[in-house]
Amino acid sequence: MTTDEKESLPRAIQAKAAPARQRPSNYPEPFAARIAGREKKALGDFFGLANFGVNLTRLAPGAQSALLHRHSRQDEFVYILEGAPTLVTETGAVALAPGMCAGFPAGGEAHCLVNKTDTDALYLEIGDRTPGDRGAYPADDLEARLDAEGRWRFFHKDGRLY
Amino acid sequence: MTTDEKESLPRAIQAKAAPARQRPSNYPEPFAARIAGREKKALGDFFGLANFGVNLTRLAPGAQSALLHRHSRQDEFVYILEGAPTLVTETGAVALAPGMCAGFPAGGEAHCLVNKTDTDALYLEIGDRTPGDRGAYPADDLEARLDAEGRWRFFHKDGRLY
Repeated sequence: MTTDEKESLPRAIQAKAAPARQRPSNYPEPFAARIAGREKKALGDFFGLANFGVNLTRLAPGAQSALLHRHSRQDEFVYILEGAPTLVTETGAVALAPGMCAGFPAGGEAHCLVNKTDTDALYLEIGDRTPGDRGAYPADDLEARLDAEGRWRFFHKDGRLY
Repeated sequence: MTTDEKESLPRAIQAKAAPARQRPSNYPEPFAARIAGREKKALGDFFGLANFGVNLTRLAPGAQSALLHRHSRQDEFVYILEGAPTLVTETGAVALAPGMCAGFPAGGEAHCLVNKTDTDALYLEIGDRTPGDRGAYPADDLEARLDAEGRWRFFHKDGRLY
């Protein structure tokens, strides 16, 4: 982003007014179908941030944030704004509520959010963009590797590319 | 942080229940006095995150988030939860409100939040920890440099250490 482009950005926005991301998921099938009902607004990208992403993410009833996963190098954080999604980890589940937050350090417990309620859940999710990251999915035949261009590539656990 | 330490962390917390940071400011005097009335809860650190910080920051009436500043390498983002702080930049001011957000890419416009109202303002602030960062303060005789240990060192604009 050039200096001129940076200067032309709006100074502040209503987060809910940001456009939703067009591509619903990076996952290959059959995994992409499992996060149907998830909508992300890339707030950080909107302001030209490069080092981390901040998404305003909405989970419809029954939707989930991601497959159960952990990152090898990147940290993640969520802050609940509306609704009561369930934080699911490898060893348990915790009901969240507005004003609650959770952090997921690189190499920590695998995790995801699942909306088991009848109303939408809305939260902020933050993740950095440290290169060389890998995503591990303990419950699925999936492994993700961040390539040199910053794109996720997905593999079976035996190394075959999806 | 060891694997055992990571596993002993709570999975989720009420953000407001997190302890406040004990040291109110890194700034040298006379600048530290100018951010009196600012309180930060280091939510990201609480969960052992290393790559970025997430603070729950409260500005009492009259308080400000920081001196007017920009970072050379680190990005910043704020999301307003309560109150109506004013976003002040080098070229203007914008009143914020709950649900509004703003991002500050490295090398962008200098900025700070000022609470010009009679009630507290509460917001989330996110910043990454890219090494080699510098803080520029266009309105003050101050420059900040992040040292190899990740601590901020403060200088006059003629290079003398504070």
